[in-house]
Amino acid sequence: MDRREEIYEKAMELFIAEGYDRTPLSRIAKALGLAKAGLYHYFSSKEDLLFFIHERNLKRDLIPIMESAEKIKDPEKRISYLIKEYTKASMTRDASARVLIHEVGKLKPEHRKTINQSWRRFFDLFRNSLSELEALGKSKKINKTFAAFALIGMCRWTFYWFDTGRMESANELSDTYEEVFFRGILKG
Amino acid sequence: MDRREEIYEKAMELFIAEGYDRTPLSRIAKALGLAKAGLYHYFSSKEDLLFFIHERNLKRDLIPIMESAEKIKDPEKRISYLIKEYTKASMTRDASARVLIHEVGKLKPEHRKTINQSWRRFFDLFRNSLSELEALGKSKKINKTFAAFALIGMCRWTFYWFDTGRMESANELSDTYEEVFFRGILKG
Repeated sequence: MDRREEIYEKAMELFIAEGYDRTPLSRIAKALGLAKAGLYHYFSSKEDLLFFIHERNLKRDLIPIMESAEKIKDPEKRISYLIKEYTKASMTRDASARVLIHEVGKLKPEHRKTINQSWRRFFDLFRNSLSELEALGKSKKINKTFAAFALIGMCRWTFYWFDTGRMESANELSDTYEEVFFRGILKG
Repeated sequence: MDRREEIYEKAMELFIAEGYDRTPLSRIAKALGLAKAGLYHYFSSKEDLLFFIHERNLKRDLIPIMESAEKIKDPEKRISYLIKEYTKASMTRDASARVLIHEVGKLKPEHRKTINQSWRRFFDLFRNSLSELEALGKSKKINKTFAAFALIGMCRWTFYWFDTGRMESANELSDTYEEVFFRGILKG
């Protein structure tokens, strides 16, 4: 792990355990065996650090899923892929996702804008896939914005309750979401 | 508003604006024009206060929905009712819900247990309704635990994105959730 990664990992560990507000940079430096001044080589404030971690996580967890999904031509298959991969990502990044989402309001406007652009791209990917499905005559007339949020919420909420000790259920879980979203729970 | 309510409202306002960790009791007392000692008439610590607010919100927002839902005999109608009311509640209590959910780990074990009991009752209401639907032959064979979480996540996530200035969309939103959950987005 490079030094920067090591700092991100340790900082996130402390943010999860103690809370973002209660973790000063000096505490992070100490846990890494560094002088606080040493951290300023990597970022200029705690807010900067929070932003870098958030951006790193998006690049690691969300952006590759979007890039792969964007290559899938069929909108139904694209949505299936997004459900499966996004559910898996939500299952495994639980504690850090909670902190990052909760603290997004602490970011400077320009940093928040960068983060929001990724989420917007993600939302648009769902919403545009629903528009394509409709254009193909495959889906009902439905409010596509609300349906996209319904789907994102369904997958995303996983990180609030899923027991990460049960990763063997990952496929059954995303299959359930897919079935619910495409065809609902009722018979015929 | 009675004094206790006034304290809860002001405390929540500060927790939302400043964060729970960064709001000492002395700050809350000052905002209320009280001596800090005056607050100890109502609770014995900040953790106590957080618990009382959480419990008050559940009693105000969640428990009446459950009680009304439990009186509805037909499981499909019961689920419709839950979707509609829970979505509405998630739309309007956005900022305080974020704080309370995020800070639940700060509660003492016995307080957390009390809060979790209400959420467990809520989850069971969804899950049992799905079991009843299945027993009536109305629903597909589906993992009912996962489906219940899917539905809760769909409704709950609303508070992360919904613009409370658009409350006129409340019915369209819960109708979309209901349609997705019962019948899915695909045609035929």
